[in-house]
Amino acid sequence: MLTRVTELRTLIRTTRTRLADGRALAYYDDREPYVSGMATRALHDSRDLPAGQAQPTMRRDVLTGEWVIFAPHRMDRTHLPTAAQCPLCPSRPGALTEIPADDYDVVVFDNQYPSMIATAGPVPAWLDGDPLWPQCPAVGRCEVICFTSAHNTSFAELTPHRVATVIEAWVDRTRALSAMTQVRQVFCFENRGAEIGVTLHHPHGQIYAYPFVPPRTERLVAQAAAHRDRTGRDLFADMLTAELRAGLRVVYQGTSWTAYVPAAARWPVELHLLPHRAVPDLASLDSAERSELATLYPAMLQRLDKFFADQGDPGPVPYVAGWHQAPIGPGRDLVRLHLQLFSVRRAAGKLKYLAGSESGVGVWLNDTTPERIARRLRSLT
Amino acid sequence: MLTRVTELRTLIRTTRTRLADGRALAYYDDREPYVSGMATRALHDSRDLPAGQAQPTMRRDVLTGEWVIFAPHRMDRTHLPTAAQCPLCPSRPGALTEIPADDYDVVVFDNQYPSMIATAGPVPAWLDGDPLWPQCPAVGRCEVICFTSAHNTSFAELTPHRVATVIEAWVDRTRALSAMTQVRQVFCFENRGAEIGVTLHHPHGQIYAYPFVPPRTERLVAQAAAHRDRTGRDLFADMLTAELRAGLRVVYQGTSWTAYVPAAARWPVELHLLPHRAVPDLASLDSAERSELATLYPAMLQRLDKFFADQGDPGPVPYVAGWHQAPIGPGRDLVRLHLQLFSVRRAAGKLKYLAGSESGVGVWLNDTTPERIARRLRSLT
Repeated sequence: MLTRVTELRTLIRTTRTRLADGRALAYYDDREPYVSGMATRALHDSRDLPAGQAQPTMRRDVLTGEWVIFAPHRMDRTHLPTAAQCPLCPSRPGALTEIPADDYDVVVFDNQYPSMIATAGPVPAWLDGDPLWPQCPAVGRCEVICFTSAHNTSFAELTPHRVATVIEAWVDRTRALSAMTQVRQVFCFENRGAEIGVTLHHPHGQIYAYPFVPPRTERLVAQAAAHRDRTGRDLFADMLTAELRAGLRVVYQGTSWTAYVPAAARWPVELHLLPHRAVPDLASLDSAERSELATLYPAMLQRLDKFFADQGDPGPVPYVAGWHQAPIGPGRDLVRLHLQLFSVRRAAGKLKYLAGSESGVGVWLNDTTPERIARRLRSLT
Repeated sequence: MLTRVTELRTLIRTTRTRLADGRALAYYDDREPYVSGMATRALHDSRDLPAGQAQPTMRRDVLTGEWVIFAPHRMDRTHLPTAAQCPLCPSRPGALTEIPADDYDVVVFDNQYPSMIATAGPVPAWLDGDPLWPQCPAVGRCEVICFTSAHNTSFAELTPHRVATVIEAWVDRTRALSAMTQVRQVFCFENRGAEIGVTLHHPHGQIYAYPFVPPRTERLVAQAAAHRDRTGRDLFADMLTAELRAGLRVVYQGTSWTAYVPAAARWPVELHLLPHRAVPDLASLDSAERSELATLYPAMLQRLDKFFADQGDPGPVPYVAGWHQAPIGPGRDLVRLHLQLFSVRRAAGKLKYLAGSESGVGVWLNDTTPERIARRLRSLT
């Protein structure tokens, strides 16, 4: 059912530049004539942008031990502009956007409204300190990745050729960000759809580099460490074996990847992609794994978009797709890369909300079953 | 600024009965002539309801160690009925509701679409087992509490007299549910507003009794235990002292309670109510504490409703209000009762969404600061 990209071309031309306010931008060109890097086509960012004043900070919650990030400047971020005002489309004369080129393939740049920044400034005046709630500037990175210059499309509609370029961009950024001193985890993700809070419709994702190990990753490390202590074995390998043995929740079994609904799926639609080999991050995928992923991933997104078609909902379906990578530092050998893809839509016209049980005490209620989700996804070939 | 209920009357008449399908219901009458318990006023539930077939189940997520509850029958629950069809209003001839009485003050009954049930049935056919994901029937309780028979009002508008009755109902249910063998935590909460997923507008809350310690409570126990090990002191007492010393985030300091915005508030509007005395749950509050709370709580909800009035949003503001109580069993002496009140509204017409960072890896981003939230709440006397 999947068309494989047999010849994954390796020639991606990367061009790095700066925006008017100093933010970094990198083009990843994947086709002749590698347009955005060409001097004749690329534009100088001539916008009059204020120098970055944002100073996101973070505090550790004394009751949960978790860091919370404060970025009040984000309250003013661009909110659902019209297509003509889209800041992620290529620039046109008279309409300068975040991308100073008249076309591009894939581009990554520093977010104008970051939740974390590269260099700490002074601690802002509103912060009061106490040993009970450690606080500091939120040093890290928030990058935007545009998957295509075409405004009215989606990741599911990208060609495997283009998906392969996106993967190479994720790999490049994962590698670079992981090498930075403060970074403890790199998280590549896509939020799609107004129902999940997306403020820009242009197909894009985000890359966050956190200066701490996020709560979910901490749990993964703890669970995998306990499993290794108890059994001497790898948790992810055993989980994959058990899912394949059960079979009920497997949606696609490929050469290098398996797509399955986890036994304890917490969302009304949820699908995980797990590589068969124990790799910590995207950068560790070999070319066969990247190649299969370039076809498998958009194919799964296409199924997601059809999930509620039998209820009269033609899609697109809002989703979050997040690449869980191993932390940098302790626990790195315990966590395997995996994609978690989920939707908050629970039925045509109805959303799953995180109310008292989920947001209050952290207990997820699912109004369906993992087996039903898998059966539906398997039927959507 | 707060009017105290000086004479908290203790005469609440409790009447227990059963609905047509066997679900338990209790009236808490707080005024003459104690209407709902009277034989001449109370009605027999003559509805033709199917006997309970629901069989919620739960599985432990192998990657996080957290229990997830599956309740597929909830997919068909009543969704935003018109006021005339409200199942939480008193019954009228020809319009029988969940409450078989022609009036009531406060009433608590078993949810018709529970996420947890009192008695385990056989494990459903769709469940496949594996030692990696323990699974079992979701044994616990899901109760509904109606705060008033008046459909078009809100908790914020209840009289302190009525709030005191609600508190007594919470106390009664907390005590009863905590005594049940399987129950490890009782969680009284209110979801208010369609934006947080409320499917019925009648002023009501819910009471969940979980057969495990929820993730947030586990974190509280771990943090408080670490603090006690390190300092020999009580975490909640030290936190309250530190908040009062800082002062910046204190919204109201009463005799028995302090209302404050936590230093690491994760929601765009968040307020906690903490008793000054170390009590594990609502049932342990003395009469002075209950009396002050009966006035303080609706007063704080009134401020919440006015939070965005300066932006042209007259309210009501959607919110979740959750009573965090100590777990039953280990850690009970470490956790102090507190109310967490928060809203997903971040500005007039804009919501905070839990997207990639929050729902994916568990890192909260807040587009405001705790100090700003506190300043705004303080100004709304």
